[in-house]
Amino acid sequence: MRIAALALAAVVLAGCGRMETPEQQAARMQAETDSAHAAVAEGNARWARYVTAGQIDSLGLLFVADGVAMPPNVPGATGRDSIVARLRPFLIPGGTLTLTNQSFAAHGPIAVARGIFAYTAPAQGRTPAVDVRGKYLEHWHKTDAGWLLAETTWNTDAPTPPPPPPAR
Amino acid sequence: MRIAALALAAVVLAGCGRMETPEQQAARMQAETDSAHAAVAEGNARWARYVTAGQIDSLGLLFVADGVAMPPNVPGATGRDSIVARLRPFLIPGGTLTLTNQSFAAHGPIAVARGIFAYTAPAQGRTPAVDVRGKYLEHWHKTDAGWLLAETTWNTDAPTPPPPPPAR
Repeated sequence: MRIAALALAAVVLAGCGRMETPEQQAARMQAETDSAHAAVAEGNARWARYVTAGQIDSLGLLFVADGVAMPPNVPGATGRDSIVARLRPFLIPGGTLTLTNQSFAAHGPIAVARGIFAYTAPAQGRTPAVDVRGKYLEHWHKTDAGWLLAETTWNTDAPTPPPPPPAR
Repeated sequence: MRIAALALAAVVLAGCGRMETPEQQAARMQAETDSAHAAVAEGNARWARYVTAGQIDSLGLLFVADGVAMPPNVPGATGRDSIVARLRPFLIPGGTLTLTNQSFAAHGPIAVARGIFAYTAPAQGRTPAVDVRGKYLEHWHKTDAGWLLAETTWNTDAPTPPPPPPAR
């Protein structure tokens, strides 16, 4: 009986080894949120750098394979190649994109980031200066390759002016 | 010793009572996702009903107290009263809103829903028919009062036409 009781305790303990207490779970979740927040911040910094550098092709790297981008005033696009093609016309020569995150939430493999953006370019010849302000909402997903964009959308705080006429 | 061993097993079992196995966790998470999906679908059905009925005030009920709505072409709004005021000008008399969900993800208290919408109204007198198509992205949060919108944004698939001239 003594041996049986000890064996029982050992079996129960072995089972417990696969589990976590609520306190352990809370600590793990906070650590996961902090890690996700840092990864998403870096992802958004890369987005802004790519746009500012005119490296639109690189934006595809930020998405999961079946990711979705939904820019304003055009239909949404699914998949990296479609997303890159859909975003290219939005590029303003000499434009600088700044993203400012305002809210972040994460749980397990899901993270949501919200913020505002400014996309500006100085006047160049007869092309007037550009100053577009807006807001974005992003759904990031944790993958084996790190945190990637599953879905993103944005719009502007005022109707977007028509494209400037080409410089002559 | 035998009593001590049994007591140890009892203590370990009591500790395990607060925990769950990976299998239990997976089953719980699937049930939670299904429940969240149903609640969010009902929330979106209410959103469409309220807009179609012209009950813009009721849209505030769908948000957490510090919720954020980010419509296109205007700045975002935070808090129920601000959201309702910001959304009112978007109302089209006689308009019918249809939401079609295309993607849903949930984990714990966070859910993300993505879809497309159509907002249509028949021609009325000299007012031409309206047919606005677009897409939305929503962040829902589980609260003591159920699933509520924490953040939502949308935009249109084409530049929104200027408001029709008033009928004479």
